[in-house]
Parts: sequence; structure tokens; C-alpha cells
Amino acid sequence: MNVVKGRFIGVGVGPGDPELLTVKAWRLIQSADVLSFLTNDRGDSQARSIAIDAIDAAIGVQKEIPIYMPMQNERSLANQAYDKGAERIAKKLEKGLDVVFLCEGDPLFYGSFSYLLERLEDRFECQVVPGITSVNAAAATLLQPLTMLKESFAVINGRHSDEQILAALEQHDSLVIMKAGQARIRILDLLQKAGRASDAQYLEYIGRDNQQIVSDVAELERASGPYFSLFVISPHDQRQRRLHK
Amino acid sequence: MNVVKGRFIGVGVGPGDPELLTVKAWRLIQSADVLSFLTNDRGDSQARSIAIDAIDAAIGVQKEIPIYMPMQNERSLANQAYDKGAERIAKKLEKGLDVVFLCEGDPLFYGSFSYLLERLEDRFECQVVPGITSVNAAAATLLQPLTMLKESFAVINGRHSDEQILAALEQHDSLVIMKAGQARIRILDLLQKAGRASDAQYLEYIGRDNQQIVSDVAELERASGPYFSLFVISPHDQRQRRLHK
Repeated sequence: MNVVKGRFIGVGVGPGDPELLTVKAWRLIQSADVLSFLTNDRGDSQARSIAIDAIDAAIGVQKEIPIYMPMQNERSLANQAYDKGAERIAKKLEKGLDVVFLCEGDPLFYGSFSYLLERLEDRFECQVVPGITSVNAAAATLLQPLTMLKESFAVINGRHSDEQILAALEQHDSLVIMKAGQARIRILDLLQKAGRASDAQYLEYIGRDNQQIVSDVAELERASGPYFSLFVISPHDQRQRRLHK
Repeated sequence: MNVVKGRFIGVGVGPGDPELLTVKAWRLIQSADVLSFLTNDRGDSQARSIAIDAIDAAIGVQKEIPIYMPMQNERSLANQAYDKGAERIAKKLEKGLDVVFLCEGDPLFYGSFSYLLERLEDRFECQVVPGITSVNAAAATLLQPLTMLKESFAVINGRHSDEQILAALEQHDSLVIMKAGQARIRILDLLQKAGRASDAQYLEYIGRDNQQIVSDVAELERASGPYFSLFVISPHDQRQRRLHK
């Protein structure tokens, strides 16, 4: 007898506030046969914590596939973890069970889901439920438009080269620099060099209890910061001039 | 007697699928004293339609402030509409009523809310509930990651100059070109010129009944398209090579 294979569904749970789950995310989490998510070395999963109310409201018994992800820069370790995780998920899908993979933010925007998707999409039906990104959550927290009128907008990250970051700071009106933790000192220097330090604001752990906002980046300690930190750069002065002319 | 002023709250209702409202958006819409939204010349509001289930579930009687927005390129007409709309909203806020302004997508990402915010933020407490953008919805529909590893990502729009669009196509791995309708022919030519036509896909009316996806943009008619259309450009080949090496 042929079993109809299950679906692999990436679900974005948003940036941290449990109320920023979508209605669709809530429904799919509640009705999933199997939940999967990344964990750290203590077995903690941020994505699972954000979705805990929906998980507690689950209709049936849910199996869980936690995937331990080592937090090193070594890419081969991450690839091994994704290979193993994908095969554990594949076994459930083969049995006809739907697997919901929980992702912080949006599954396809710097999301771990993308690496599982590329390992499973040729064999199984895959779906994605988009989530609120930390980019949109940061703008909401700061009450700062990301784009107005003809402004352009880019997202870069702390792993990019000095040249790439400088070029983006010069060419785009608004920017978000993600994964700013390790690169914080370098980013502060580049903001200064591009003459955009006064356009920049810094946020970490958006929407969580330990959220921090630094509106004047000159006050920011010249040291590394946490992984979940970002800079928002927007053209305040230009907008003020337009409004009051 | 001093009345405590109401709050002006921009709420993103997402790209079209009513299930992509967040739990928080649903709660605030349901409990709002006053709802406001843009309408076209027939009085229709896309944002209100998307949120209709939450509106129908409202706890009390809700007043509505529809703001008619002329669909011309003439910026002064739009500014007049925002001026008038902001004053109507201000009157409710002065009376201590909370006003929820409904926005398609995210309120601060090419959103009309930004223009009301700049007219009201000095006088009233303002808040934003972020929403799912059409950028994230497009990626979900195409099952196409926006960013992986060290890839950079930009959002530009059809109003940008040829030079700006070409520069972005050359510098960023992944891009979304918003508001592509009027500029469609020009964008097709620029994709060709930058050698990125094979990386591009086209979408219109994402998540609505009349959604269209064109995966090979060479098949796209050389004509203007609707306002709600966009191109997603992502480095397929580069990702395939990485995966299979």
C-alpha cells in the first residue's frame, strides 16, 4: 500500500512577542503531527518558546524533532546537523506525517529552514508560512519608516566586507545591518566613515524581556554584542526637510 | 477636566490572505474604538477587506474614518488627503478614542501609515504592529529563500532610475523590485542588461484570488502591469553549485 507522504511546512513565529504569530502559524502549529526546531547545547529553542501557547493548545499528541545546532562558525558542523536533521524529518514525512518546522522571524529570511528545504524539496511537498522579521519589528519598535516615497532599502549583515558595507551605506537611503554582534566595532567605524552615524540606531533582543535600544550609537560600548542585534539606518534629516519645506 | 488622549495605532494586515494577520493585529482591530483606512474612488479598501473577519468580531460599535486617496502620481493631491485624514483622526484621538489605522503589508514598509504618523507623532502616542510584507509573502509563495549565508539583499522599486536599478542588480545577490507595474518593460530590459533575467521571477496580487506567477520572465508580456506586482531575483545557480559541490 502506498502511503501519501506528509508535508514539510516552515512556519515563521516572528521576532519574539508571542502575539506576533500569524493566525495561520497558530493553526498549523496546533494541528501539526510533528514539530521540529533548532536547539542550543542546553536543549533550549527560542522558536519553540515563542510558540509555546500554540503548542500547549495542540489538538493531539505531537512528536518533536529537536535539531541541535552547534553555535560555531565552522560551516561543516552546521551542514552535518542539517543533513542529520533532514533525514529524521524525512522519516516522518515518509510515514505520511506533516512536519512543522518552527523558525524565528521568517523561514526564508536568514532562516535555518532554507537549509532543510534545499535538502528535502526534491522529495516532498514543502510549504512556507511567512513570519514577521526582526527588520519589521525593529522599525515598529523605533516608530521609524523603513521606506518612504522613492527611498531605497537594503539589508546587509555583519559578515559582509568593509567595502560591501560602505557601498551599501552610500547607496541606500535606509538600511538594516543584521547579525551585528561580532562585527559591532567594525560597523561603528564604517558608520562614522560613511557619515551616517547620526542616522543609525541600535537594537538587541527585540520584543523580548531583555530588549535594548540605543538611539545615539556614539553611546554604544566599543565591544562585541549578542548575535540577535542589529542597526537601523534611516534618513531622518532628509525626511524632516521634506516635511517642513 | 483633562481627557487622556487616545493612541494612534498602525496595524499591518499582511499581503492579502486573512490568515496572515497576526494575533496582535486581530486583538487590536477587534477592540478598536475607531478604524481608519485608505479607500479608492469607489470607496473600496483592500486593507479593510483583508481584516473583515476581525472587524465582524468587534466587541463594541466601531466608528470608521475612510480616507479617500486619489490614485494619481501628483504628490500634492496625496499630501492634501493625508492632511485632511490626519485632522479627522486627531479629533477622535483628542476625545480619548484609540484609532487603529489598517495597512496592507507592514505599516512602515512603503506604507501609507508613515505619512499619517509624521503628521500626528508630535501630538499623540503612536504605536505600530508590524505585518507580513509582500516581500516575505512572495518568497513563501515561490519557496525561494531571500537570503542564505553571506548573501546580501536589497529592495528597490520601479520608480528608481536605470542606474540605481542596475547598480543594485550588480551588487546584491537577492533583490525584490516592488511597484513594478508601470516600469515593467524598463525592468525587463535592465534584468537582461545585468545578465540576471534567468534569476528573476514575477508575481502579482500575491495571496489573492487573482494571483499570477511567471517563473520565466522571458514569457512576460512587454506591457505595463498592475500596481501590486513585483520581481524576485535570487541566485539559483550559485546556490545549486554550493549545494552539489
